[in-house]
Amino acid sequence: MHIVLLSGGSGKRLWPLSNDVRSKQFIKLFRREDGSYESMVQRVYRQIMAVDADATVTIATSKAQVSALHNQLGGDVGICVEPCRRDTFPAIALASAYLADVRHIDPEEPVVVCPVDPYVGEDYFEALRELSRQADKGEANLVLMGIEPTYPSEKYGYILPESAEHTAFVKAFREKPTEDVAREYIEQGALWNGGVFAFKLRYMLGKAHELFDFADYQDLFARYGEMAKISFDYAVAEKEKKIQVQRFSGEWKDMGTWNTLTEAMEEPVIGKGMMNKECSGVHIVNEMDVPVLAMGLHDVVISASPEGILVSDKGQSSYIKPFVDSFEQQVMFAEKSWGSFKIVDVEERSLTIKVTLNAGHSMNYHSHKSRDEVWTVIAGEGRAVVDGQQRRIGVGDVVTMPAGCRHTVFADTELKMIEVQLGEDITVRDKQKFELD
Amino acid sequence: MHIVLLSGGSGKRLWPLSNDVRSKQFIKLFRREDGSYESMVQRVYRQIMAVDADATVTIATSKAQVSALHNQLGGDVGICVEPCRRDTFPAIALASAYLADVRHIDPEEPVVVCPVDPYVGEDYFEALRELSRQADKGEANLVLMGIEPTYPSEKYGYILPESAEHTAFVKAFREKPTEDVAREYIEQGALWNGGVFAFKLRYMLGKAHELFDFADYQDLFARYGEMAKISFDYAVAEKEKKIQVQRFSGEWKDMGTWNTLTEAMEEPVIGKGMMNKECSGVHIVNEMDVPVLAMGLHDVVISASPEGILVSDKGQSSYIKPFVDSFEQQVMFAEKSWGSFKIVDVEERSLTIKVTLNAGHSMNYHSHKSRDEVWTVIAGEGRAVVDGQQRRIGVGDVVTMPAGCRHTVFADTELKMIEVQLGEDITVRDKQKFELD
Repeated sequence: MHIVLLSGGSGKRLWPLSNDVRSKQFIKLFRREDGSYESMVQRVYRQIMAVDADATVTIATSKAQVSALHNQLGGDVGICVEPCRRDTFPAIALASAYLADVRHIDPEEPVVVCPVDPYVGEDYFEALRELSRQADKGEANLVLMGIEPTYPSEKYGYILPESAEHTAFVKAFREKPTEDVAREYIEQGALWNGGVFAFKLRYMLGKAHELFDFADYQDLFARYGEMAKISFDYAVAEKEKKIQVQRFSGEWKDMGTWNTLTEAMEEPVIGKGMMNKECSGVHIVNEMDVPVLAMGLHDVVISASPEGILVSDKGQSSYIKPFVDSFEQQVMFAEKSWGSFKIVDVEERSLTIKVTLNAGHSMNYHSHKSRDEVWTVIAGEGRAVVDGQQRRIGVGDVVTMPAGCRHTVFADTELKMIEVQLGEDITVRDKQKFELD
Repeated sequence: MHIVLLSGGSGKRLWPLSNDVRSKQFIKLFRREDGSYESMVQRVYRQIMAVDADATVTIATSKAQVSALHNQLGGDVGICVEPCRRDTFPAIALASAYLADVRHIDPEEPVVVCPVDPYVGEDYFEALRELSRQADKGEANLVLMGIEPTYPSEKYGYILPESAEHTAFVKAFREKPTEDVAREYIEQGALWNGGVFAFKLRYMLGKAHELFDFADYQDLFARYGEMAKISFDYAVAEKEKKIQVQRFSGEWKDMGTWNTLTEAMEEPVIGKGMMNKECSGVHIVNEMDVPVLAMGLHDVVISASPEGILVSDKGQSSYIKPFVDSFEQQVMFAEKSWGSFKIVDVEERSLTIKVTLNAGHSMNYHSHKSRDEVWTVIAGEGRAVVDGQQRRIGVGDVVTMPAGCRHTVFADTELKMIEVQLGEDITVRDKQKFELD
């Protein structure tokens, strides 16, 4: 099976856990059998591999997520990077060209596209295989997954099938309705459109060429910014006559808001947290080192991270975005392919950061125009290079780097350092990269 | 007017703002006219001075609070330090001996004792002067303030006066009652006992000598631990026949729990915080650098500090103590006479602390057996002494101190440093102090 996972943008709807650089799909919220936690993207990748160990998985995403994907899934996962943000059709067109020209997949083979963020069981992945097999048959150009509605949701588009059979041709599509209208659709046998579909690669390449003139993947990548912002549903699905839908009635939860996310959490508290017996329907997700105490609350989600603290009635948690957008705040922590960082102190003319480098990784060789830096190693071993001079460093060693000096560090083991940045105008933009001789 | 303010123990009932080293009376929660904030102790001290600029103020407290008191009130405030924790009668006896023997107050003069933590207006301090004048008259040995009850509280003891006059002799005392019994007391004209009273100094010195044999203040201080733990009400007030009560009907709020504390807050948010319109009765007190967002909550207090995060229904906020006691946590921040510290990162074998020294202050000259330390100066100027060698330090300078070396720093301006502690067993007990030659 060839799967394209669409890994969407940086969402603030799960603030303070998600931010401009960490999308919700990278938050480790789901308990594995061994007691550790995995993220949505780790979970879905593991589930695909459990169902089909030979599956070709390609993640279509933005440049900003590449580090996090490699960090969480390892270096081998196939990633198709969008050079800039367009809509779903350009993303799928680019991924299709990537599959054909970079991964050399036979254009007659079926491909399944699905978003990375629903919370599902393994039966969902069995359903994807069925979708793939159905596309392979060639009865239709496009085979959609239709999710059997559990309530008259206003959040999804609906698919009206010709019949109530497991696989049926599509009669019509319906936009996100009001609750009353959704109820009518469901009476008519409509299914939720979860954005999951399968097709033969040749078909999608054809659609891509119809809508945009390009030579191959490299050419499309180079000129990606010229493509119109157009959704896959509008550009392809709603115009296609030979289109089928296949029913899916298993577990399927959209993890878009705290409300739905907490429904999928197996335990009420992740991280340091405690609540009294008078609490009901309370979830605590705490990424800080200090405890959260909840007393006498009902249907409330509390989440704390280095970015901030959310305390929300679960129903109201869908409305946090405009408030979060109004916070003018720098990114306080991030996971990168090389490790992670966390801002631990902010002063007018200094910034103190805990930097963790994974073993075998290093920073870019770089310098800053307007700030000095001091590293104090707090764990691990490595090698620092300052203006071409390499030295071994370990716990307690201090490296001072005046503005202008070129520097990097290699982690021989996991390496943790406290980095103090000092200057009048500290900004992430003040960074020049160099090749290391 | 001579006033003794009783500044009580470290309370966890206002966690996470109060902790083992910071008592609730030092938390800056009350807005001054200039927009800055003051603590309970700063507010009460300012109010006393506004009513009587010549008042002699003595704060009776424990050793642990001396730094914070000097830090918030300046070096000139009179502090009578209890060598160890006893009950209210020993504390008042010691304060009386201090007034007589250290401050040389005439034993015929009246003294007013009151707790440091009620939230009151200036009329309260006028009432204290009246209490003092009444004690001066000598009609009674002890004159209590009786607060006119606003509801049948179970939290206070009650005083039954002989008559409904403004000043009356006391008929009887009643212990903290149930709500129904409180209602009966109030029908009988009973008043709340807020622990405020006045007496002539000679009277209290006599009571002290009756109950404990001592020569003078120095002797009492030296043998303070031998005194019985006995409350002032039990030892003196309830046994006194010549005792009056004076009514007070002004604003008086006990700041013991989050519920009552938030009633006294003039605005719903202190620090970085935001709430949507669906919130009602919500208070946010945030001492962190990152924002708190509250959505759709009712009658909830949210407080965040480097110690942790509390989210509590206001009614339930009186019950936090056992939960807070169960958190095994080091003190994450503290204010000292010399400045403040805040732990910004905790690792297994390192601790990173932001240290702020006030201008003109220094640390003790000290060493550590089992840890190395590194300072990086992030603001200000000063002088570091390491093993007897002094050097000037400023922004960007690094001082490394291996285990065993003696060190201190003098702040010539306000001085801020990031201190990295490194070792197998980092503990506050690992500290040897030395005289600096």
